[in-house]
Amino acid sequence: MDMDLVIKNGTIVTASDTYKSDIGVKNGKIAGIWKGFEGEKVIDAKGMFVFPGGVDVHTHLDMPFMGTSSSDDFATGTIAAAFGGTTSLVDFAIQQHGDSLSQTLADWKKKAEGKASIDYGFHIAVTDVNDSIIKEMGTMVEEGVTSFKLFLAYKGSLMVDDAAIFRILERSREIGALVMVHAENGHLIDILTKQLLSEGKSAPLYHAEAHPVIAEKEAVERAIALAEAASAPLYIVHTSCDDALKGIKQAREKGLPVYAETCPQYLFLDDEKYKEPNFGGAKYVMSPPIRAKRNQNALWKGIKTGDFQVISTDHCPFFMKGQKDMGKDDWSKIPNGCPGIETRIPLMYSEGVVKGRMSINKFVEICSANPAKLLGLYPMKGTIAPGSDADLVIFDPEKKVTLSYKNLHQNVDYTPYEGMVVKGYPVKVVVNGELKVDDGKFVGKRGTGKFIKRNRFEG
Amino acid sequence: MDMDLVIKNGTIVTASDTYKSDIGVKNGKIAGIWKGFEGEKVIDAKGMFVFPGGVDVHTHLDMPFMGTSSSDDFATGTIAAAFGGTTSLVDFAIQQHGDSLSQTLADWKKKAEGKASIDYGFHIAVTDVNDSIIKEMGTMVEEGVTSFKLFLAYKGSLMVDDAAIFRILERSREIGALVMVHAENGHLIDILTKQLLSEGKSAPLYHAEAHPVIAEKEAVERAIALAEAASAPLYIVHTSCDDALKGIKQAREKGLPVYAETCPQYLFLDDEKYKEPNFGGAKYVMSPPIRAKRNQNALWKGIKTGDFQVISTDHCPFFMKGQKDMGKDDWSKIPNGCPGIETRIPLMYSEGVVKGRMSINKFVEICSANPAKLLGLYPMKGTIAPGSDADLVIFDPEKKVTLSYKNLHQNVDYTPYEGMVVKGYPVKVVVNGELKVDDGKFVGKRGTGKFIKRNRFEG
Amino acid sequence: MDMDLVIKNGTIVTASDTYKSDIGVKNGKIAGIWKGFEGEKVIDAKGMFVFPGGVDVHTHLDMPFMGTSSSDDFATGTIAAAFGGTTSLVDFAIQQHGDSLSQTLADWKKKAEGKASIDYGFHIAVTDVNDSIIKEMGTMVEEGVTSFKLFLAYKGSLMVDDAAIFRILERSREIGALVMVHAENGHLIDILTKQLLSEGKSAPLYHAEAHPVIAEKEAVERAIALAEAASAPLYIVHTSCDDALKGIKQAREKGLPVYAETCPQYLFLDDEKYKEPNFGGAKYVMSPPIRAKRNQNALWKGIKTGDFQVISTDHCPFFMKGQKDMGKDDWSKIPNGCPGIETRIPLMYSEGVVKGRMSINKFVEICSANPAKLLGLYPMKGTIAPGSDADLVIFDPEKKVTLSYKNLHQNVDYTPYEGMVVKGYPVKVVVNGELKVDDGKFVGKRGTGKFIKRNRFEG
Amino acid sequence: MDMDLVIKNGTIVTASDTYKSDIGVKNGKIAGIWKGFEGEKVIDAKGMFVFPGGVDVHTHLDMPFMGTSSSDDFATGTIAAAFGGTTSLVDFAIQQHGDSLSQTLADWKKKAEGKASIDYGFHIAVTDVNDSIIKEMGTMVEEGVTSFKLFLAYKGSLMVDDAAIFRILERSREIGALVMVHAENGHLIDILTKQLLSEGKSAPLYHAEAHPVIAEKEAVERAIALAEAASAPLYIVHTSCDDALKGIKQAREKGLPVYAETCPQYLFLDDEKYKEPNFGGAKYVMSPPIRAKRNQNALWKGIKTGDFQVISTDHCPFFMKGQKDMGKDDWSKIPNGCPGIETRIPLMYSEGVVKGRMSINKFVEICSANPAKLLGLYPMKGTIAPGSDADLVIFDPEKKVTLSYKNLHQNVDYTPYEGMVVKGYPVKVVVNGELKVDDGKFVGKRGTGKFIKRNRFEG
Repeated sequence: MDMDLVIKNGTIVTASDTYKSDIGVKNGKIAGIWKGFEGEKVIDAKGMFVFPGGVDVHTHLDMPFMGTSSSDDFATGTIAAAFGGTTSLVDFAIQQHGDSLSQTLADWKKKAEGKASIDYGFHIAVTDVNDSIIKEMGTMVEEGVTSFKLFLAYKGSLMVDDAAIFRILERSREIGALVMVHAENGHLIDILTKQLLSEGKSAPLYHAEAHPVIAEKEAVERAIALAEAASAPLYIVHTSCDDALKGIKQAREKGLPVYAETCPQYLFLDDEKYKEPNFGGAKYVMSPPIRAKRNQNALWKGIKTGDFQVISTDHCPFFMKGQKDMGKDDWSKIPNGCPGIETRIPLMYSEGVVKGRMSINKFVEICSANPAKLLGLYPMKGTIAPGSDADLVIFDPEKKVTLSYKNLHQNVDYTPYEGMVVKGYPVKVVVNGELKVDDGKFVGKRGTGKFIKRNRFEG
Repeated sequence: MDMDLVIKNGTIVTASDTYKSDIGVKNGKIAGIWKGFEGEKVIDAKGMFVFPGGVDVHTHLDMPFMGTSSSDDFATGTIAAAFGGTTSLVDFAIQQHGDSLSQTLADWKKKAEGKASIDYGFHIAVTDVNDSIIKEMGTMVEEGVTSFKLFLAYKGSLMVDDAAIFRILERSREIGALVMVHAENGHLIDILTKQLLSEGKSAPLYHAEAHPVIAEKEAVERAIALAEAASAPLYIVHTSCDDALKGIKQAREKGLPVYAETCPQYLFLDDEKYKEPNFGGAKYVMSPPIRAKRNQNALWKGIKTGDFQVISTDHCPFFMKGQKDMGKDDWSKIPNGCPGIETRIPLMYSEGVVKGRMSINKFVEICSANPAKLLGLYPMKGTIAPGSDADLVIFDPEKKVTLSYKNLHQNVDYTPYEGMVVKGYPVKVVVNGELKVDDGKFVGKRGTGKFIKRNRFEG
Repeated sequence: MDMDLVIKNGTIVTASDTYKSDIGVKNGKIAGIWKGFEGEKVIDAKGMFVFPGGVDVHTHLDMPFMGTSSSDDFATGTIAAAFGGTTSLVDFAIQQHGDSLSQTLADWKKKAEGKASIDYGFHIAVTDVNDSIIKEMGTMVEEGVTSFKLFLAYKGSLMVDDAAIFRILERSREIGALVMVHAENGHLIDILTKQLLSEGKSAPLYHAEAHPVIAEKEAVERAIALAEAASAPLYIVHTSCDDALKGIKQAREKGLPVYAETCPQYLFLDDEKYKEPNFGGAKYVMSPPIRAKRNQNALWKGIKTGDFQVISTDHCPFFMKGQKDMGKDDWSKIPNGCPGIETRIPLMYSEGVVKGRMSINKFVEICSANPAKLLGLYPMKGTIAPGSDADLVIFDPEKKVTLSYKNLHQNVDYTPYEGMVVKGYPVKVVVNGELKVDDGKFVGKRGTGKFIKRNRFEG
Repeated sequence: MDMDLVIKNGTIVTASDTYKSDIGVKNGKIAGIWKGFEGEKVIDAKGMFVFPGGVDVHTHLDMPFMGTSSSDDFATGTIAAAFGGTTSLVDFAIQQHGDSLSQTLADWKKKAEGKASIDYGFHIAVTDVNDSIIKEMGTMVEEGVTSFKLFLAYKGSLMVDDAAIFRILERSREIGALVMVHAENGHLIDILTKQLLSEGKSAPLYHAEAHPVIAEKEAVERAIALAEAASAPLYIVHTSCDDALKGIKQAREKGLPVYAETCPQYLFLDDEKYKEPNFGGAKYVMSPPIRAKRNQNALWKGIKTGDFQVISTDHCPFFMKGQKDMGKDDWSKIPNGCPGIETRIPLMYSEGVVKGRMSINKFVEICSANPAKLLGLYPMKGTIAPGSDADLVIFDPEKKVTLSYKNLHQNVDYTPYEGMVVKGYPVKVVVNGELKVDDGKFVGKRGTGKFIKRNRFEG
């Protein structure tokens, strides 16, 4: 009955339930749920929601890309995450051509160890496929890396061909791993890029033109077809548009084990942003690009129907000054990506729950429970139940915050949501039983995040 | 810490979570979930699942119909329910032509009070619509009757026309009620019935021919259209076939608040049964009828995709001897209905979870959480969480039972599942904190079930 | 080689072919196609298209309705038709309650005989169904009335119930007739009408509100379901909107023999028209009403995909002064309908062919060949081939005409297309080998049109 | 009036009309249609249908492939075609790597000139794409080669990548050409082939396993996506299965200019054939392979709904002895293809028209009018109208023939339809006004076929 920490008087929310009770925490884990606990430390959550910590399964911290590196490393990035109510993440370790997967994993572990303030796992992005790599995938799964990513875009660097995709899918099915795909047709993008640049179309706006909806739709359908041929499950990352969603929906209607995520940038931003003056459009240069406004409704509907199971961030920040401006005269040189690790939970709550687009349980489901379940983090992460890690967000549903890069903790000089007002915000964040964030201050230990050996995919 | 009852060592399952802990029960409610409780009474659930009690929102107990009455009353029916792991139900009070709704409710309360051994609520089936009835619907909602049923079938008795349906839908939206429809085209069935009988086709087999799939599909689509016109939510009861499901799916894809249930009889039986010799086909005479085998897969898929949210029973038993045999020479005189209140949970677990068609959480969702949420019983019923009623099923996943009417507790001389072997069975059932069923015996008090004032529909 | 009439130098167009040659006419029929003919009379069609005469299978001439009669009788209406390039029509004979079908046919024949200047047939609209009417349908088919119409709208006057619809469908299948339906849900319209009027909403605008898209969609789907149940072919008249079209498309995808028409008013007008000041909205009061603009694209697409086979007019004119104004204070008293018999061909050519929405062969197919084939007029009507009736339109593709009721020949004081400029117009019209219209003048004999015994439906 | 040839008393059938008249032929062309012609030669077609000559737009005559050549050259192949009622064809000239398109065209013209007995055109299959080839496409169109084919299959030999496909599509749109695709995913087939062979699966049966439905479906969807990106029309050749058809249907529903053909082998044969003993399965080794039986119904429906516009043959014969047996020990070495140029018309009439699956006009449309229109041969070919080439088939609807390679004129030692009885057969075939085939004998001049400069694609 003597707990290390008791969260009192809050309204506990899981993917299916909402109720009032107290949470007892012992040894970093949830010991029980009952109004009778006493504890050394007590957090009074009266008037607050208590959510399971957010799980972000799509981040790029300290990633070398297009001649630079994403500007948040595991130190800054995980603290920003915690401020935003995210208490665990899965990042992408990118295989360099010629490297083994073990080498890749080792490289990325080094980036994170001692730096991360929340728990983390890794997917490996396979870019160079051969017999030995195929074999090595099994070892990775044993080490807790139970998902592999493939790029259908970025011709000439990260892109792999259909034969490689099929082999990785077959092998993943065998060993209990999940394949994730960046689905855009790299061939088409490559030609369109050359055509646009040869016509002198060098402004950020043309990034969107070079990455049309049809390139994404095609790649989504192809990836699904190859997964079906391999009888393997598939996870589509960062779906940006209605046409891609339709392919996903059709696959799911057929009963195929196809899963998908979308990201806040596709729900809240539209392609008018590319017209921001003074190179401002560069903030939104990412792949796939943000789309015409009508897609937003379709994506919200995809969340409602369950065709999207996960909201992730694809957090991949670059400074406008010194990084994005590498593409000042040629949009194809702008590092692709935008920040979002800190704003996901507040945005989804404010625009999702407050605006009546989803129930509060659905919000927990897509931001925490589902990503944990699909990527092998459950039941350690993703819910509030005895035995789970004590990753908890005390969330004030009345707190209004005006988003600005100046107040956020991401290491980057802009946010795409600058000036947007959200209602509802994390006020205290507990990670593995330790209070890390308290009313706008980071009060916990730094660098205590652990590598998570993830479970095999269960579907 | 001193509980009235503690369920120890079980694996607790809700619509989203599965974990091991103990449940403390006090004053008929769940007090907490923690391994530290002590209690006056203890149930050891080692090796067992602990489910929230089943919720059956479609039963017909003690219902006058076709010149007789369904053979289970609230005494026998609720005990059978408890044996089968169902701990609350919502029954249909049927308005007699000329009666007020208050009269109808009073009549049905009288049938249940002091007899029911589990909690119960009522929907009112409106069969005689006029201005005063429309007005009275508001009073009913205040008394906790927050759903109304309409029949598009049974021309000349229960059927109401499209104008009445539209009015009831509009009124329900206004007052926070949910409209449920029996969706079959009564005009078409009436003609087909006359045509078949005039051709001398009097065997039970022809019941199915008189109730074709198209009659159901049409009525489903019409009900949805009228609900859309009225901007009202709609709940389709006992969906039997793929074509009807397709209409439901389309509506949901459009974002309409359309909900639906199917029943075990449509998942497990097919129309070959009507050929059982010696009038055996009469056991399966119900409306809609059981369908061609290929529909079963479609219905299972509808559960998987979430197009069906609820599994209910449409429990409406009649003895073969003395009741069904009223239609010996004319199938149209066979009382429509079959028993199922006791077998729902075992069948869905055995054929659903054990056979890999759904996760154990999904099973809880469709048999307990969703019916509770959609029909205004949540959070009293439908989950295991502090504050909820202590309706709990201790379920042995290894127990094999051969279903037979002789061992079941339903007051009827057959079960459509005679001889079927199920794996997994409720072994102890707790209702409002009291152990009612213990290893095949009814050990609790009888007649303690209470009328539930249900919440308004929230969508 | 000596022809009564030779059409020289024109470009002949049929539903599949376009070529230059001459047409020889003898005894009112096409004798041959060859550049070598000589003839008593010669029409030089250089630079002109020669089309088979238009076939309009949906007209209401001299029809008693809502306390008045449509303002074109068979004399004025058929002359207007000829001016517009339509050389045969099928009109609706409406059964009065209590009348036999023979009586109905006799009544309508009397209206037409000696008055019509082009050939005509009749559908019978059955409004009062009983055993003797069902039987009499067979006689009608033998007399060349091979289609029957049913109203799902107009509750209390023309509407029949689902039982009647099903019986008529079954009987029609038996005797080789085609059932046509006016598909709007009369129950729903009736209530909405009462509600709107009780709220003081009496302007023409509210006619549209009382006839929502969903009422049409529902009725289309219901009619299709009943036809499927009866294994009978079905023809949906005057489809006005995308949602109704979707139902038709689905049925056709399933392989059901479902056919449909739309009308120019639904392709060219939208519901903003109801806001015309000074009771101007009354011009567009028809059922179904004209719809929101986005439906127009959908309907054009329906033509392209073949889901609509026919463009008809639903020509049913009423004078604004003295007829439409009966509903000055109550839109529900405005006689429903609008004129169009004269403008169909020019509008479809100008907006369809000239604007690139369809080929010239498709234009002939939907305005002439298909209506002739589906309604049993082919091969007498609907094509240019040896043996067919010499109903020919010499059409100047360069002639521009500004449509105005002042220049049109319809007996009514407005056209919904007032001021619209069309490119392409009939300049000479030949009916049964006789030149009827010549450069804006009616030069032929009047009243020579014959009743056409139509063939059975062949599908 | 004095004709070179008159076809008397026949029933003339076009894509839209059926009527009795006589056809006058002068100078190899149709002069007129009239019962009054006299002529030097007269063919009495009493009791016969007169069809426009069949147009086969997918043949491989004298084609070098897989180390051998297809066994019919332009001499034998065109005579076989004529016997079967086909009077013009478009063959594929295959670019050899390094060759210019002009060279390719010249090579293929040489194969045909002086040998072909019916008129012929060429598509060019582009296999080696670079800037100069892209440019040269314009020259080809001017020379009457207005369609280009691309292979998404045959990795390592004929296959081109998505970038090349997109460029060819863009260029084709510019110059008025039509792109045709062999849609199967070559990457997937290549891996599956290697896997199967490495497992010792060397029998013909495994050819089908290496070419799964999903490989075709994927490639169809990808080709459509690339065509949409390029705003170019697209023609899918030899569609074999329902899943591929669905992709085509969806594109057409969207309004994309996507066209498709299927072939008799996919309508009449199923994959049980691969089990024929003694290497018999090799007869059916073609790409895509023949499919599971349920696809046949879907393909017939695709004809009915208009999603297929064309029936072609993909005639590509190889002798079982000396050619197919190159793959005796390894199915991947069996030359792909089967004969069919002679049997298309009889099969489609007998199984299509006689069995009630299509009207006789539809039969003419898909076997003659549509291929002529889509591939730029109309109005020279594809119809019976004054001005068109006098390519005519006098067809006896009552003649029964048992198909056997012994009686057919294809230069190959089997037919996949051996022993099948067809009802209806061409009895006299006229090519450019000359009687070529008369009651089973070739009576015309040989080698008189001309190269056809085809029109640009018009859509």
